[in-house]
Amino acid sequence: MTEQTIPNAAILVIGNEILSGRTEDKNIHAIARKLFTHGIDVLEVRIVPDMQNAIIAAVRALAEQYDYVFTTGGIGPTHDDITAACIAKAFGQEYGLHSEADAILGAYYQRRNLPYNTARQQMAHMPLTATLIENTDSGAPGFQCQNVYVLPGVPSIMRTMFDGLLVSGRIAQGTTWQLFSVTIHKAESEIAEMLQQLEEANSGLEIGSYPRQDEAGNYLVNVVFRHRRPERLATIKTDFVATLQEQNIFYTEE
Amino acid sequence: MTEQTIPNAAILVIGNEILSGRTEDKNIHAIARKLFTHGIDVLEVRIVPDMQNAIIAAVRALAEQYDYVFTTGGIGPTHDDITAACIAKAFGQEYGLHSEADAILGAYYQRRNLPYNTARQQMAHMPLTATLIENTDSGAPGFQCQNVYVLPGVPSIMRTMFDGLLVSGRIAQGTTWQLFSVTIHKAESEIAEMLQQLEEANSGLEIGSYPRQDEAGNYLVNVVFRHRRPERLATIKTDFVATLQEQNIFYTEE
Repeated sequence: MTEQTIPNAAILVIGNEILSGRTEDKNIHAIARKLFTHGIDVLEVRIVPDMQNAIIAAVRALAEQYDYVFTTGGIGPTHDDITAACIAKAFGQEYGLHSEADAILGAYYQRRNLPYNTARQQMAHMPLTATLIENTDSGAPGFQCQNVYVLPGVPSIMRTMFDGLLVSGRIAQGTTWQLFSVTIHKAESEIAEMLQQLEEANSGLEIGSYPRQDEAGNYLVNVVFRHRRPERLATIKTDFVATLQEQNIFYTEE
Repeated sequence: MTEQTIPNAAILVIGNEILSGRTEDKNIHAIARKLFTHGIDVLEVRIVPDMQNAIIAAVRALAEQYDYVFTTGGIGPTHDDITAACIAKAFGQEYGLHSEADAILGAYYQRRNLPYNTARQQMAHMPLTATLIENTDSGAPGFQCQNVYVLPGVPSIMRTMFDGLLVSGRIAQGTTWQLFSVTIHKAESEIAEMLQQLEEANSGLEIGSYPRQDEAGNYLVNVVFRHRRPERLATIKTDFVATLQEQNIFYTEE
């Protein structure tokens, strides 16, 4: 079996409100979880302010380095919504009224008997070559420009659109990680060496260890093993559990 | 009154568990809020995996561009805790057992009758020139290397250490933003033009607008005005409220 290429991705969050601490971002975690399940490795996240130079620089750097870039925020109707214009500039594309987006938004507001005013029409402005991302929730579509997928910042709308994007088949499906997780009733520093040896001895295995204390103050470590080959992970699990039992180390599977 | 230079900062979160979606980061928001109150502008956030090249590249890029860099994660006792070694490499500093950190940790475990083993001693390894950041919670200190401040990933411990760092006087205090916030009972696209004109007419004023719907489906927008001069913001507020009243626009102050 040859090693498969795993698609990778970056997430770019755009918005002063996150950097100033006014708003706690909810999109990074939601996107990261969905991409993990989809078999795509998220290798970087950036958060930048609503500033043209910062957005353009980040879009270019991430689009060049990763297979997919997902942006959230900055595509509403107000003056600080400059993401679409910046994406066009980043790729040297013409920015203007996208006829398909214009038709969708015009019909959306007509159905609701709401005026399709200048501010609302701004949401149909984007790189003219963009491919739309459907918004079944609030009308205004997202869009794709090259390998960059532009999504809104409102978490509920973003999630609906992102789910639709994943099932659309436009995002490649990778080989998902297989996971095995145990909680060990020891301090992290007491099992550190054992974990290191195990990871070094098994190529393709990644071990994460996450310490905490229970209410009584006892040390616990949640240890997560991940591997992309189920049969390899199964063997590693059997051997590891046997080792814990031999050494009388108390553990619980999760 | 001359314009003051506002110190700026970046946050660098290090950890596979955030990028894979296993863990939702809690540190970005906590640090961003505290720095906002301290008068420091956070201008960028990055999240990178536990990979040497990624960490070194991010540390160098951010340390060069911003006044302060705060990192979280990757300073525990296990094999995937490589932050300290990467910081040393990023700055070309010698990495090894830091005698002051070693003394603190040795005493910490002795008081608890716990062995000060190899894994625990790893937490005293860092750039030899580093200045420590006190950890009154769990012993292992953070450290400062040039303009980079290295903190742990466990949120409760990170917060205690960060609070201590802020009151220590080692982080400059900037001029804090003055805020004024109203909720307007209109769709965001109906007030977009008014907000844009207001921002353009007032230098130093930044306006953020955050739309939502109430339970009955009515559109609301939370509008946040910020300015660093209290007297300027007070005038803007008076004028803006008068405009809303003249135009019979329903609003609530927050």
